[in-house]
Amino acid sequence: MNGAQSLLETFVTAGIDVCFTNPGTSEMHFVAALDKQPGMRAVLGLFEGVVTGAADGYARMAGKPACTLLHLGPGLANGLANLHNARRARSPIVNVVGEHATYHRALDAPLNSDIHGFAGPVSAWIRTSESASTVAGDAAAAVQAALTPPGQIATLVLPADTAWNEASGGADALEIPGLTAADPGAVDGAIAALRSGETCALLLGGTAVTDAALRLASRIGRKTGARVIGDTFLARIGRGAGRVDLPRLPYFAEQAEEALAGVRHLILVDTKAPVSFFAYPGQASELTPKGCEVHTLSRPGEDCIPALEALVEAVGAGAVDPQLSEHAPPRLPSGPLTPETIGQAVGALLPEQAILMNEAVTSGFALPGMTAQAAPHDWLELTGGAIGLGLPAAVGAAVACPDRRVLALQADGSAMYTIQSLWTMARENLDVTVVLFANRKYAILQVEFMRVGAENPGPKAMDMLDLSRPDLDFVHLAKGMGVTAVRATDAKSFNDALADSFATPGPYLIETVL
Amino acid sequence: MNGAQSLLETFVTAGIDVCFTNPGTSEMHFVAALDKQPGMRAVLGLFEGVVTGAADGYARMAGKPACTLLHLGPGLANGLANLHNARRARSPIVNVVGEHATYHRALDAPLNSDIHGFAGPVSAWIRTSESASTVAGDAAAAVQAALTPPGQIATLVLPADTAWNEASGGADALEIPGLTAADPGAVDGAIAALRSGETCALLLGGTAVTDAALRLASRIGRKTGARVIGDTFLARIGRGAGRVDLPRLPYFAEQAEEALAGVRHLILVDTKAPVSFFAYPGQASELTPKGCEVHTLSRPGEDCIPALEALVEAVGAGAVDPQLSEHAPPRLPSGPLTPETIGQAVGALLPEQAILMNEAVTSGFALPGMTAQAAPHDWLELTGGAIGLGLPAAVGAAVACPDRRVLALQADGSAMYTIQSLWTMARENLDVTVVLFANRKYAILQVEFMRVGAENPGPKAMDMLDLSRPDLDFVHLAKGMGVTAVRATDAKSFNDALADSFATPGPYLIETVL
Repeated sequence: MNGAQSLLETFVTAGIDVCFTNPGTSEMHFVAALDKQPGMRAVLGLFEGVVTGAADGYARMAGKPACTLLHLGPGLANGLANLHNARRARSPIVNVVGEHATYHRALDAPLNSDIHGFAGPVSAWIRTSESASTVAGDAAAAVQAALTPPGQIATLVLPADTAWNEASGGADALEIPGLTAADPGAVDGAIAALRSGETCALLLGGTAVTDAALRLASRIGRKTGARVIGDTFLARIGRGAGRVDLPRLPYFAEQAEEALAGVRHLILVDTKAPVSFFAYPGQASELTPKGCEVHTLSRPGEDCIPALEALVEAVGAGAVDPQLSEHAPPRLPSGPLTPETIGQAVGALLPEQAILMNEAVTSGFALPGMTAQAAPHDWLELTGGAIGLGLPAAVGAAVACPDRRVLALQADGSAMYTIQSLWTMARENLDVTVVLFANRKYAILQVEFMRVGAENPGPKAMDMLDLSRPDLDFVHLAKGMGVTAVRATDAKSFNDALADSFATPGPYLIETVL
Repeated sequence: MNGAQSLLETFVTAGIDVCFTNPGTSEMHFVAALDKQPGMRAVLGLFEGVVTGAADGYARMAGKPACTLLHLGPGLANGLANLHNARRARSPIVNVVGEHATYHRALDAPLNSDIHGFAGPVSAWIRTSESASTVAGDAAAAVQAALTPPGQIATLVLPADTAWNEASGGADALEIPGLTAADPGAVDGAIAALRSGETCALLLGGTAVTDAALRLASRIGRKTGARVIGDTFLARIGRGAGRVDLPRLPYFAEQAEEALAGVRHLILVDTKAPVSFFAYPGQASELTPKGCEVHTLSRPGEDCIPALEALVEAVGAGAVDPQLSEHAPPRLPSGPLTPETIGQAVGALLPEQAILMNEAVTSGFALPGMTAQAAPHDWLELTGGAIGLGLPAAVGAAVACPDRRVLALQADGSAMYTIQSLWTMARENLDVTVVLFANRKYAILQVEFMRVGAENPGPKAMDMLDLSRPDLDFVHLAKGMGVTAVRATDAKSFNDALADSFATPGPYLIETVL
């Protein structure tokens, strides 16, 4: 057994059975080892941003890491933006980055680079295996690091000779630390706030938006009048019929300030005090109202459930039911195709247990409302602001949940960062519907341009915010990568295409020109 | 004048007049400033790897930096692989990376990341502007750093408030250090070697493959019998009729060892002692023959021309002419379409002063021979091994040289890393012909798989090396991004399409299925 084989055996022992890959020469022994390890599925991406974004989507739905296989520093570099997003989502991921043989590194061959340097900003754990005999132990430690709450990115650098030299075997899985208990003093502080009679709000993130946590928060809110609000961007939340419909802190700072206006006690549950996404001249970056006291009920890595249960009991909400959404999807729309009618059709037709990946950006404003009373579904979104996660995450979610339909709601500008994802969808015949919102501009930037106080954009500036000249044709792009694709021109044709996609195995792209 | 305007003014004063961009909110004041600065052209890319690869291609042909405009850490991250290639090409580039406002950074908003961490492995110079008043001076220093021999990557981080706050004006250009003189002792050593009667070889890289340097080296070779060999990968070399036809050190280590067999004195000119691209089990990584003495005539950043002139004089080659290629292009091919007939047609039809960007990988083996006696042209290639440079570099070369045809010879697998380049070619109506070699596999990896001593690939391994299932359709992909595209099916149709592309303004893609 060589080092690469010991690596895969260790991963499979630890429950990691999917690898998203884009290998090169230095990873060939890992690739060869795949055929000796029936427990590991390998999914090829044509670009590393697809690989890492898929690992993020996979982790969010599978609740465990996939591994990635990346080619030296530049291969890792191409995957960093979606690793940044994954870090913000607290998704556990184990990166395997191939490296030159240990004795070859000092020669500074063309592909040599500072891999630890590239990996540092996104990784909670980095290690280079220095011999084949340590690979298995390093792999077990990497898995442990990835699964350490609240979920982390572990990067294992694998010099080629440690993959090809003889190793003694796989390693046992290491113990995964559990969530720790929230500070009892923090619980007491939150209870005192909720009992104060002053306006309270619970701001929820991370593990505080699981079904169980949301039901507890909803009961607290109903009993005490406290506002219950979710972070602006969440890695995953269950929505639709039978779930708590969680209002979110708005993206734009002044709307967020309005949502928090009058709050005297802000109780943070697995999140931090809210800040604006960007700074704007003359506007505050910190969104906590003046004079508001901030209470941290639980931090990332702490178990919020007992803490929320203590609040429920303390405020006497034990007999209060949570407020759950009814099943009342919108009717099918007719008329012209707009973001609203697209949202309406999505809400009307969404299959049970669909996984909705929202990277529709400005075109997606109607989606939350239109799907709140749709069939129960999971909702994923961009957590780190690095656009280009949507299509890769849809790949990963579909690999994690082969029995569920994935619906990627995707803006055109963002789609182009990782458009290669379509090919992997076709190769793996993944049940992904892509609704492509083609407004042919970076619409969010046209908004932000004004908001940051730049003057009216001149022609050169407008050119940087515009995606026409030439128009992108996503039907051609999808067909170029083997994906069925149609263009919808009105609500009726969109309804039909969306229903058709849900009834058709494999990927299916619908371009909507807005 | 705000900080962003002072930045652009400083750049234009220093002779930088092209910016490749993919901006976001934190860069909107830079974007707004474009309309106040007529001297700066902005070229949008849909993905940051296009932006940085274009800056590399531009620098190679313009001999000066472009600036890039990238959106925070993740935007920079997406451009790192091609910055790695640019670092290996010693291309001068000035990156401008937007950052959160200085007071916003500590709040760790979603897009916050360690930008210096990402930039470190590729940058020779990194600085964050800490106030609007320092932006102009920082910009001038960045240009100076980029142009410092042998050519470097400078990364300037621009917090949003330093762009929008008031600044006093642009800064003057700083003095650019010149090349330094080679060590006279090194020159003496090389002379002694050439006079020794033992077998010598000159290995040339960087500035030692300009026309002037190659002519000197050729004269030395003709006079002394020394082998004259170029590095395996060069940033730019003039080829074709009237130029020295420089043999290259082969990529595969055993072929490189053969090329150097018997050499007792290896004279390095602006390069380092050869090492194999990857390590292979049981094979040496250092390619200098045993017992061979290595003489470093000049190092990167040193002026190789006087050093070579000294050798010419010392060996009495003053009256010897260099060996220059005749103009004897191959005849137009007929018959089936193969890498050979494609190379033959390229050699036959290549326009005068074309810029040929070779990222054809295994499909390109016939190109050097078939173009050696073609019309004079410049040849660019991948220097850092991070595939996905070809199409972006073609964009940059075409922007730098609007009067010359660019011919991108591009493998299919590599093309998919930065396929978004096609859109920028269409938007800017760049005169780029893309010949897409579709062998539908990572053919180099199928070769390397065997070479690294992995056993015969099993089905899972083969799946990682294979690009069929589904086949990529580059005609569809090109049309999806507004680029004229055809598929050639035999030599005749390829000849016709290639000639048509050279006669047609704007971009033109020819897919060749091999």
